[in-house]
Amino acid sequence: MNASEEDQRLDEAGEVGLVEPLDFHYPQPFTFESGQTIPEFTLRYETYGRLNADKSNAILIAHALTGDHHCAGIHSLRDRKPGWWNNMIGPGKPIDTKRFFVICSNCIGGCQGSTGPASINPETGEPYHLTFPFVNIVDMVRTQKLLLDSFEIPHLYAVVGGSMGGMQVLQWAIEYPDYIHRILPMATTWRQNSQAIAFDEVGRQAIMQDPAWNQGNYEPSAGPNVGLAIARMMAHITYLSDTSMDRKFGRRRQAGHDSKYSFDIEFEVESYLRYQGESFTNRFDANTYLYFTRALGYFDLAGSYGSLDKAVAQMKCRALVVGFTSDWLFPPAQNRDVVLAMLRQGKEASYLQIDLDLGHDSFLVDSPELFELTRAFLS
Amino acid sequence: MNASEEDQRLDEAGEVGLVEPLDFHYPQPFTFESGQTIPEFTLRYETYGRLNADKSNAILIAHALTGDHHCAGIHSLRDRKPGWWNNMIGPGKPIDTKRFFVICSNCIGGCQGSTGPASINPETGEPYHLTFPFVNIVDMVRTQKLLLDSFEIPHLYAVVGGSMGGMQVLQWAIEYPDYIHRILPMATTWRQNSQAIAFDEVGRQAIMQDPAWNQGNYEPSAGPNVGLAIARMMAHITYLSDTSMDRKFGRRRQAGHDSKYSFDIEFEVESYLRYQGESFTNRFDANTYLYFTRALGYFDLAGSYGSLDKAVAQMKCRALVVGFTSDWLFPPAQNRDVVLAMLRQGKEASYLQIDLDLGHDSFLVDSPELFELTRAFLS
Repeated sequence: MNASEEDQRLDEAGEVGLVEPLDFHYPQPFTFESGQTIPEFTLRYETYGRLNADKSNAILIAHALTGDHHCAGIHSLRDRKPGWWNNMIGPGKPIDTKRFFVICSNCIGGCQGSTGPASINPETGEPYHLTFPFVNIVDMVRTQKLLLDSFEIPHLYAVVGGSMGGMQVLQWAIEYPDYIHRILPMATTWRQNSQAIAFDEVGRQAIMQDPAWNQGNYEPSAGPNVGLAIARMMAHITYLSDTSMDRKFGRRRQAGHDSKYSFDIEFEVESYLRYQGESFTNRFDANTYLYFTRALGYFDLAGSYGSLDKAVAQMKCRALVVGFTSDWLFPPAQNRDVVLAMLRQGKEASYLQIDLDLGHDSFLVDSPELFELTRAFLS
Repeated sequence: MNASEEDQRLDEAGEVGLVEPLDFHYPQPFTFESGQTIPEFTLRYETYGRLNADKSNAILIAHALTGDHHCAGIHSLRDRKPGWWNNMIGPGKPIDTKRFFVICSNCIGGCQGSTGPASINPETGEPYHLTFPFVNIVDMVRTQKLLLDSFEIPHLYAVVGGSMGGMQVLQWAIEYPDYIHRILPMATTWRQNSQAIAFDEVGRQAIMQDPAWNQGNYEPSAGPNVGLAIARMMAHITYLSDTSMDRKFGRRRQAGHDSKYSFDIEFEVESYLRYQGESFTNRFDANTYLYFTRALGYFDLAGSYGSLDKAVAQMKCRALVVGFTSDWLFPPAQNRDVVLAMLRQGKEASYLQIDLDLGHDSFLVDSPELFELTRAFLS
């Protein structure tokens, strides 16, 4: 098969296929909203589909707290799993790579190739650790803008993302109103409520109280994995719903643990959570977890702009905001609030509430309703 | 003032007043449901009001996971806080100590004076630690029954309790049907759902992964306080509701922490949680936390008796079961289930759903509706 035959085959299969991460290097100082500066940075990113001649077909995907730039396709034929939004992005899929040029970057402060607390500070030759600047959602957006500028993309057809990605989407539309035509934030909020702040604080405490954290100065191979796993186990519960957990695990005992009376794994849900916790430590940096959860907590459109109405008044895009009935981390009302504010401000905005019982993570699952309306909104 | 004048004064104030914990010592072996045996045990308990001549006016209070025997009155005039259910129990209160003899014991396995994992095993002279038998809800009930037998109480007028206390209440009515006239379980469940099991597992992991836990073999003064505090912080969130947390803390910054950008305490809710976590370690034993959360997870009336209907079919009491709308740990439906099963089995049972937005802990707050119906149910 030649290259175009291979393209044809993947198009027919509806798959992006093999993709390769790329690095965007910005060789100049970048100043964060906090006022702190780094001398240069790198964003790791991926693209799918082709940028058209007038560069008008670019869609930016913004990832969630523990996501990354790899949202579609595979890196190797041996990969067991494709990118995290592979059901949404690809030829013929709701975000159709036959039509759109899709780009997704690992956020600044991240740990999947972009510059973050584990990166070497070129000025000292040492890892930044906690000397890395505090990251806000707007910093994620501004660094992504520099990446898009390197493509000389004149405007984004759309920005799409869920959870922390949805915060970035909202921030994009406020920060660069003339640059953004459509936004599709999902399962997100314009500011975290007290409960969400509280859960994030417990996760940070689990990490920071782990002796291996060492005030953030740990070797990558010897990080606070115990604390990070605890944080992840707890957070993972908040991404699901009681209904979906009951359906998936119920009170079933782990095979081989039928006899009760131990503090080891007994229930299937315990086994699942421990696996989630442990595997997370293999792919995520604890300091990034601290920085990104602070970014979530600091994000507050009302606080930053005087009110939610004043914040959205700056937008010039069309919006489809999606909330999920069973999402108790960023409940539907917090998504609907954004649309109501936009409508009060005379903007073109729709609220879509999807009745899925999979909790916060509903935005990641196959949903014909979500797929159909995403497709229509992007048409 | 003489004693009866002092009684009079407290009656008028509606307060139990000064109370003293007592110890019930059972000098014979007790075999737990697990089959494990201890050679003797002690239950610490308190009583309020007076047992009448025919001993027909006794009400047993069953405490929740982190509660204890001290549910009303004060231990010293210097006490800043009375017992945990002081608003419910006292002269003229819904559980009226002018009429009832109220008794509450620290559960077996506990850490507030009753025999538990931190107690000395008289056969070895060493603390039990993890050699203490696994504790089930039914063991809590059976040991309480031995305490009541020591009073030669022929039957209980009522058993009342919330959360883990509610589980004990249900178990009492099944285990000793002829002994129980009325039950008033609140904010409880007939079996934990997967989400509740999951949260408890994260708490146990936080404790057991703390190096100070040392496989349970720690000195009382050097326990796994870091892990226990993490567990408590997380669990405390599950006792509240997003609404009550938003009202109480919102996104307010801690005084003196107005400038953002740190990983220290910034939000009030963070300060509150850390205080909850730290103060908990001063009063609670980590191993008891492991045992009691396992007791919660193991409790399953359907699993133990074939079905919930078969379980409640054994009851001979009247029941008022109370659920709270904002309780997402033991949701209202799990309380209503019990009443529906009792009604199917021809029992006299009512379900009361109280619209309070304080979450699981709603059963502990002042609620005119709860108070009035408790009073009426006990009349």
